[in-house]
Amino acid sequence: MPNFKTIAFDADDTLWVNEPIFTNTRLEFENILSKYIAITDSLEKELYEVESRNLELFGYGIKGFMLSMIESALELTHYDIKGEDIERIISLGKDMLKHPVEVLEGVKDVIDELENDYQLMIITKGDLWDQESKIARSGIADFFNIVEILSEKNPHAYSTVFSKHGIHIDEVLMIGNSLKSDVLPICELGGLAVHIPFHDTWMHEHMEKQHTAEHEYYELNKISEIPDLIRRLSQD
Amino acid sequence: MPNFKTIAFDADDTLWVNEPIFTNTRLEFENILSKYIAITDSLEKELYEVESRNLELFGYGIKGFMLSMIESALELTHYDIKGEDIERIISLGKDMLKHPVEVLEGVKDVIDELENDYQLMIITKGDLWDQESKIARSGIADFFNIVEILSEKNPHAYSTVFSKHGIHIDEVLMIGNSLKSDVLPICELGGLAVHIPFHDTWMHEHMEKQHTAEHEYYELNKISEIPDLIRRLSQD
Repeated sequence: MPNFKTIAFDADDTLWVNEPIFTNTRLEFENILSKYIAITDSLEKELYEVESRNLELFGYGIKGFMLSMIESALELTHYDIKGEDIERIISLGKDMLKHPVEVLEGVKDVIDELENDYQLMIITKGDLWDQESKIARSGIADFFNIVEILSEKNPHAYSTVFSKHGIHIDEVLMIGNSLKSDVLPICELGGLAVHIPFHDTWMHEHMEKQHTAEHEYYELNKISEIPDLIRRLSQD
Repeated sequence: MPNFKTIAFDADDTLWVNEPIFTNTRLEFENILSKYIAITDSLEKELYEVESRNLELFGYGIKGFMLSMIESALELTHYDIKGEDIERIISLGKDMLKHPVEVLEGVKDVIDELENDYQLMIITKGDLWDQESKIARSGIADFFNIVEILSEKNPHAYSTVFSKHGIHIDEVLMIGNSLKSDVLPICELGGLAVHIPFHDTWMHEHMEKQHTAEHEYYELNKISEIPDLIRRLSQD
């Protein structure tokens, strides 16, 4: 029987909406570029390629995404894009940064139910400034005892965070929408994780099913099923 | 007699060169714009104004600086700037992110001398990804027991960090080049700080002398004077 003390949540697309904001922005970006070039499915791929090659320098987050959009726009239009349209792209990014934080359905009830019995934690990756801003604006920050913003979510990073707080991996249940970032690193450390898929997943977080076959984790449809899962696990 | 257990260092322009990289980039940025407009002293102010108004959304760091350079360039050239030159500005920013980390003279000797007797800490602000990259590339990361990257350096942020690590403010000596970010917040918490001015300071970190009159702190010329200061303070 697992003896959980800490329930750790990913934030983007686990506690609140994130990827749809990127998806909508990409559509508006395509709209700007449609004055210059024919928009095909390959444009999303192009942008993703620029994002991927910039990842090592920029890391995750909206500012890097803005710069990658500008860079893609320059390349795709062969530098023909007008200054006014570059400014429109910057505005799209600023709107993302200002976007209201939309807490997902069921989240408040779940953390309300768990907060008295468990140490609650947010472990998210991305841009420090933007993530802190979202956490502050979410209205649910006070429910969480520990908030950690990482530059990358891999077994080493998780292990460093847990040991910093004196948390043993056996005492953690990690919950998130990304197999790659939230679930598998925890499995690799011998911990237990719950995958709650979100309808919209960034290409970078996509994984082939077979990569996950060797690991055991729980898959739920919605976050409201978490308390029941914890009860079942505690009775095992 | 103070009973220091923790010596905390700011990083940028305290442990390694930072502001001159921004200054050089600004000169190259002006060089790009000189094709379009007459370069006067007011250009630096213009860029700083764009940076300042973007700070609330972007926070500190090179990616925000890149976006502010692009935005300034669009405004200053009345959108006339060519795509190729926007790309050049992006390249300038990428060069900043790739710039080798140049550890300041005397730093290695000082941390070498202190590391056995004190818990050494880095407390820096800025972009998580970029700061982690610089720390990793500095060659001195292993000397530090604790590294904390903050989005902002104010009394609340310092206080949160110290209490997270169970460090009492009386046990800390904080060292940095910025009165505003490294010295005064520590003084406000009742702690002791050392100011080591760096020849190049970003406008945002400038402070009028009178703002600091009410606080006591030490001012040194170079970091190599730190061990002596600690010895003197310990004998008081």
